[in-house]
Amino acid sequence: MTDYEFQGWLGEDEKSVQGHMKWGKFEPKKWEEDDVDIEISHCGICGSDLHQLSSGWGPTPYPCVVGHEIIGRAVKVGKNVKHVKVGDRVGVGAQARSCMQSSCAECSSGHESHCGVALVNTYGSVYPNGEGKSYGGYADYNRTNGHFVLPIPKALSSAEAAPMLCGGITVFSPLKQNGCGPGKTVGIVGVGGLGHFGVLFAKALGADRVVGISRKGDKRDDVLKLGADEYIATGEDKGWEKKHKRTLDLIVCTVSSEKMPLTHYLGLLKVKGTFIQVGAPDGGNLPPINAFTLIGNGIKVGGSAIGSPAEIAEMLQLAADKKVHPWIQERSLKDANQAIVDLADGKARYRYVLVNEKNAQRHANL
Amino acid sequence: MTDYEFQGWLGEDEKSVQGHMKWGKFEPKKWEEDDVDIEISHCGICGSDLHQLSSGWGPTPYPCVVGHEIIGRAVKVGKNVKHVKVGDRVGVGAQARSCMQSSCAECSSGHESHCGVALVNTYGSVYPNGEGKSYGGYADYNRTNGHFVLPIPKALSSAEAAPMLCGGITVFSPLKQNGCGPGKTVGIVGVGGLGHFGVLFAKALGADRVVGISRKGDKRDDVLKLGADEYIATGEDKGWEKKHKRTLDLIVCTVSSEKMPLTHYLGLLKVKGTFIQVGAPDGGNLPPINAFTLIGNGIKVGGSAIGSPAEIAEMLQLAADKKVHPWIQERSLKDANQAIVDLADGKARYRYVLVNEKNAQRHANL
Repeated sequence: MTDYEFQGWLGEDEKSVQGHMKWGKFEPKKWEEDDVDIEISHCGICGSDLHQLSSGWGPTPYPCVVGHEIIGRAVKVGKNVKHVKVGDRVGVGAQARSCMQSSCAECSSGHESHCGVALVNTYGSVYPNGEGKSYGGYADYNRTNGHFVLPIPKALSSAEAAPMLCGGITVFSPLKQNGCGPGKTVGIVGVGGLGHFGVLFAKALGADRVVGISRKGDKRDDVLKLGADEYIATGEDKGWEKKHKRTLDLIVCTVSSEKMPLTHYLGLLKVKGTFIQVGAPDGGNLPPINAFTLIGNGIKVGGSAIGSPAEIAEMLQLAADKKVHPWIQERSLKDANQAIVDLADGKARYRYVLVNEKNAQRHANL
Repeated sequence: MTDYEFQGWLGEDEKSVQGHMKWGKFEPKKWEEDDVDIEISHCGICGSDLHQLSSGWGPTPYPCVVGHEIIGRAVKVGKNVKHVKVGDRVGVGAQARSCMQSSCAECSSGHESHCGVALVNTYGSVYPNGEGKSYGGYADYNRTNGHFVLPIPKALSSAEAAPMLCGGITVFSPLKQNGCGPGKTVGIVGVGGLGHFGVLFAKALGADRVVGISRKGDKRDDVLKLGADEYIATGEDKGWEKKHKRTLDLIVCTVSSEKMPLTHYLGLLKVKGTFIQVGAPDGGNLPPINAFTLIGNGIKVGGSAIGSPAEIAEMLQLAADKKVHPWIQERSLKDANQAIVDLADGKARYRYVLVNEKNAQRHANL
């Protein structure tokens, strides 16, 4: 029994992405004793939300409530969940469940986000055993498996922690896994929601030198203020691909365009360097890659998707310890439709966070 | 002063690759006290030789003597060369020189083969300071910088050691650098000259399981005899891409075709697995790579070219210790023209080695 109702912004068809989500009730997944119910105070807006509302990455099981950068208070905690208690401030990222069986190579080795058996996204997934669908955080409440519900360190504000749960971990994980730290030079391609986290976390991890790379020069000041040591405007700085050749150990690319100058980006890598793609365009096509580009410098091109709960916890602690402050703009949950249109128009600097004022106020009074 | 003359098989134009090399004299690079002159007894035939003779990888500075899997006796050793003395049995691989300056990030960190300042190939390169051109091993004598001249362990025969110097190191280096060893499952795509070394060295390095992957089934028996634990004939085994999905930690791909089923190969990798391309087609185009393929499994696609002198030495010692016996076919140097035509026709099982009988006989009598 619960004394609260699940309501949120429902996308009912592809056009919902144009600002036509409708507020209404939805039926959360069937309750299990592994689950946590969360009263949502904040939810970041992620580019994925747009892809999902528009069925850009495949058909969406409408109606759909998007949002996978959820912060709130636990209001109901299943018996099997030991690390969270009612009243705790918690967060949920882009993943709601995996098989979590010891027989699963991924789940048993800290790669839950690559579970090949029973991966459930925070929204837009159908649970495999008739438990219903998953609904995200543009809502009053969320229900998610406790393994994917994380306590939030006290030092982080809810508004700042929210966008780390997908946008932050998407760049933190490849930085961490590929050796970003002292002695390393790191490039971040694209400085939007993801990329600005890339600059912040590369510095927080102690990289010697962080280079922001984007098409236009108009973000230069912002990127240097974020902490980058240098900025390359590929559309304006003539000969950038020669000047900066073989200077970076690691590049994380948040841009997702078939037309990006990938071969030139790869030329920025030092011998044995690594390029990790985290942005995925609708369709997913990358520009062609030539074998000689890979062989000539002995480089690697990889991909990375979000991160495990353990990695998210590590990132949140680093953010708390190193006082990482993302650049966010708070928007009222009431204005969610306008906010997604503004995001699509490239207006965010650099991440919108929806505030559920009613719940946020209630939590502030606790 | 020398009492020997540099003669070899000269490719004089693109048509030489069709079996039209001509025997004649050539002028080796200008002698320096860093150099070693080698009286050649054996030289492996590498696919690169064909690309160079035909100008397939770019214009060749004809006349050109190919061959970069050279074994012989040191007959003249420069004063600055300390690790080789006259009479030693030595080998030269695909690289003849690099800048070797402490200011070079590559040369000072064991990545000589990626030197961006002054890379000289064993044949077909023009030395940067007027020292002349580099000439390869289809010849009586070779002159190469001592840093790239390696002593050959006694336990290895000259005919077996020769093809390791390019064919062997090309697959050994990516196997070693990407963790091939106990606990790992390794795939080798393409089982020709390079690929057969891939199977041999993956086993010698202690991989738990080695899988040979080729289009047709007719090499199955050979590959299992080489030591592979399994063989996949992608053109014949229906549903192979599903059956073997997510089973390999590492794949080394020796095939160089724009039409190879790259996405299916990548699907064989476990989460966080690595695929290294070592084959390069003329032009170098790879099949398209989709961002979701990289992101979905968190995999990497890289390239690798030959290896450093230190890596070659390590490989030769491993081959001696683990009794690695490549499958070679000896051909007389006199028949070099027929041998390159046979190689182009896919007849080698799996590596041809040219024998300079006159010199080999002389060394046997020493």
